[in-house]
Formats: sequence, structure tokens, C-alpha cells
Amino acid sequence: MKLATLRTAGGTRAALLDEECTWLLPHQTVGEALAAGVHRGGSGADREPGPSAREADHASLLPRAGKVVCVGHNYEQHILEMGHGLPEHPTLFSKFASALVGAYDDVCLDPAAQGWDWEAELAVVIGSPVRHADGAQAREAIAGFTVANDVSARDWQRRTTQWLAGKSWDATTPLGPVLVTPDEVGGGADLLVTCSVDGVEKQRARTSDLLFGPEELVAYVSTFTRLEPGDVLLTGTPAGVGAARTPPEQLRPGQLLETTIEGVGTCRNACVAS
Amino acid sequence: MKLATLRTAGGTRAALLDEECTWLLPHQTVGEALAAGVHRGGSGADREPGPSAREADHASLLPRAGKVVCVGHNYEQHILEMGHGLPEHPTLFSKFASALVGAYDDVCLDPAAQGWDWEAELAVVIGSPVRHADGAQAREAIAGFTVANDVSARDWQRRTTQWLAGKSWDATTPLGPVLVTPDEVGGGADLLVTCSVDGVEKQRARTSDLLFGPEELVAYVSTFTRLEPGDVLLTGTPAGVGAARTPPEQLRPGQLLETTIEGVGTCRNACVAS
Repeated sequence: MKLATLRTAGGTRAALLDEECTWLLPHQTVGEALAAGVHRGGSGADREPGPSAREADHASLLPRAGKVVCVGHNYEQHILEMGHGLPEHPTLFSKFASALVGAYDDVCLDPAAQGWDWEAELAVVIGSPVRHADGAQAREAIAGFTVANDVSARDWQRRTTQWLAGKSWDATTPLGPVLVTPDEVGGGADLLVTCSVDGVEKQRARTSDLLFGPEELVAYVSTFTRLEPGDVLLTGTPAGVGAARTPPEQLRPGQLLETTIEGVGTCRNACVAS
Repeated sequence: MKLATLRTAGGTRAALLDEECTWLLPHQTVGEALAAGVHRGGSGADREPGPSAREADHASLLPRAGKVVCVGHNYEQHILEMGHGLPEHPTLFSKFASALVGAYDDVCLDPAAQGWDWEAELAVVIGSPVRHADGAQAREAIAGFTVANDVSARDWQRRTTQWLAGKSWDATTPLGPVLVTPDEVGGGADLLVTCSVDGVEKQRARTSDLLFGPEELVAYVSTFTRLEPGDVLLTGTPAGVGAARTPPEQLRPGQLLETTIEGVGTCRNACVAS
């Protein structure tokens, strides 16, 4: 099953997608559709025909995400390129939902920051409430996967020890275009993740290289906070970010950022100065 | 003007408070009341008598805060006790709204974490949308001040470089009991902040010692994200936290945590094991 949040004349609507068609659901966002159990077969009868898949206007998959939990240092090669040792625990930070944009929206590289950089990531979307989960409960709570790019302003990220100010600029983080349920992608365990800028590939890795996988992350985060339907975890980025290249590279207005996860989808975003 | 979010039989309601009375507003939370302009004199006609001030049941002041922005390292003596140098920029992190509890609610010290610690803080509540603000615009966007305690699990905070996992345990952060508008407290510029545990004072400082004051923080944060009515900034804690004492001290279930800001109010919270 594939779900999306689409912009319509009457505001956003959650939708089911098949190859060529969309079906609008009686929920404003994928988060609300998940809370109603759509990914488990609920509310299907209420659907009505939407735009063709080709004409669908994708909003951020989760425009009102209550919790956007991000993971740093989760691919060994990226940890090494950033000069760190292998961690015992996931490195967690968060970003605000206002950082999220749709899969084909512009990404705003605010001139007030510098060192804009790409970070392709598998995102894990929560489908049911979960706290103090073990591995099986965590697996059960995962509604599916989507594509994210944790676009970061390295200068603000590095101004202090805490990364929030470099990670949560409004309208910087593509999320979408669709949520794909775990049954369609082998539980997300071994998917190719790639990132390219103006058609030149910058990142390429498989999710099988994640140090902390989706279920482990959900269980860990649920130790301290209850995750709710529509919350999302960005699982971290592989090697190949601009800041670690020789010479260092930056994302610039006018460039095209493409982020793909095998079997899940592609975000294709023009970079603009705000 | 003083505002609160009260629990009533029909759910939470925003309320105006005077010495002995409360007046219920047609908004579910202080955040919604601020969005409607109540702090600027709007919606006053719709009020109806509520419980006496003594009988009022205070929820978290901002149960649905979209952004809870926190500041570390903002009082010189606390920076020195934690072994750091004076910062050039505010150290920013965030916590989820699910961490917030009411001014007299229990604080849950989950046995899954250790090193529970207190952090008394002045909190700044946003009253109108603001982005890329200068100092005057930031001042204009501040609806008022309230009391917070950024209760932290030091072991989880220190597991990695990023503090989120020690700072966002559900039901750990008292916020309230009231929002006090700036005119009543001299713009928050020089207020006494104290924290005591079982009646023993642990922290005492004045907000005039903040390195980055309320307006500067609002302006800085608004550079990267649009702040909205009901968003809140916790301005950081002064010296005297348990982790920096000799020998180190911890907050334990059964203890009473009291957090006071002069002219604003007191949070009085029993600590319990979840």
C-alpha cells in the first residue's frame, strides 16, 4: 500500500495511490489516516477518486508531524568520514515539522546560513502508539517508509555542540512522496539509498549498513517518549556529504537535489534562495 | 494579565486569572487564546466564570506547543560549573510537547534513566508569528513569561553528543502555572529564579545574568524558523544543578521540586517513579 498527502483545492487530503490513480481519503494528512488505521485496512470504503498519479500535487508526507526524530552517525562510512568513533547508542536530535516540504517542492537555502549540505535518509513512519517497546512491538508500530533529505546548514550546525540550529531551517527537508508499507520493501532492511546533485551521484549506500535499524530505533526512542501515528524517524545519512568531500562541496540555489530509496520513491527538489 | 490552561470536565480551557477568580475563555489552550489575540485585549467579551483560583486545576500551560526550544549554557556561573567556555551563540536544542506537565502535576522520573536533575528556567511564550525578527520585532512577539523546570536525565543526555534523549522524557517538564504579560514583570529583565528540592534551595540567580536575553533569543531562533503563538523558549538554567555539586546530587522519587520565578509564579511538583 502507498499513501500520500496531496494538496487539493479544499486543503490537504490523505490519499491511496496505485500505479496511475489516487483515491482521496476522509483525512487531511497521512498522519490522520494512520491514526484511523488506514494502513491496516480501515476506512477504505470512504475513498473517492482523486487526481491521476501524474497530476497529484504532493505536500510534505506529514505536514503536522508531532515528532520528527533524527539520527546522526548511523552509517559506518559516514561516521568515519566525519571523524568519529562507532557509537554505543543512537545519536538523536529533532527538527520541527515546519522544516518539512513536499517531495517536489523547492528547498529553501536561506542566505542567512552557509555550508548547505545534503543528507539522504530512509524515514520510518509510526502507525500506532508505542512506548517502552521491545523489538516486536516496535516492528508492529511501524506503518511504513518514506524518503527524506536532512538538508543541513553546517555553519549553524557547528556554532555550538547542539545541532538543532543547523537542522531545522523552515522548508529545507523533503519528505515523501509516498509512504510504502513494510510488506512492499522487505521491512526496509536492505534498500539502496542514493543522493544526487544536478545529476551527479553524491551518496550511495544500502540500509543494511545502518548501525541501528528501524526497529531498534523505534524501540530506543520509545523508551523515553510515546511515539504516535504520524511521527517520523529519519534514520541517518550515509557517506558522501558535501562537508566531508575533498575539496568540500555545498548545495547552492539553482541546483537540483534528488534523493531516492529503492522501492520507496524519489524526492526531486529545486534549491532556491529563500 | 495572567493566563492559564485549566482542566475542566469538558477538556482543557484557556482562562484569565485575577487574584481569586478565573474566567474561562472560548479556547482550549493558552496557545489558541494567544493566536486569537487575547493578550492584546481580544476575545475578552466571551469569558465566563470559572473555578476559584484556589480550586483551578492547571494543565501544562501549553499542552500542544508546536515548538519547545531550549537553551543550554546561558548563565555564566552554570557554564563554568559544567566546565565550558562562554559561548558566542546560544546553544539550542528542543523537547517534545509530550515532555510538558502542569505546574502542580507529578514529574515522572522513569526508572529506565538515571541521574535525574533539576534545571529551573524562565520560559518565554510567543504571542504572534515572527520570522527574521530584529530586537524590536522580537519584543513585540513575546506574549509573556512562565516558569519551567527542564528536568533532565543526565545519563541519557550524555550517551551521545546530542542532548535530546536526556531532555525529552514524557511528563518531566513542569510549565506554568500562568503566563504573565511583560508589563507586569518589567519585561522579564531582572527576575529572581530559584529552585528547591524538599525545601532546600539549590539554585538562585537573576534573569539579568542571562547571556542571551528573551528578545535576543527570539530574534536568533526566528532566523531559522517561524515562531508561532503558543511556541515557547526555555531560556536556560543557572548554577546549582545536581550534577555539578560536590558530591553530585540527583532528583529522586518522593522528593518535592519547587521552581519559582519572582512575579511570575511557582511550580510545585512531586517526583514519582513512572
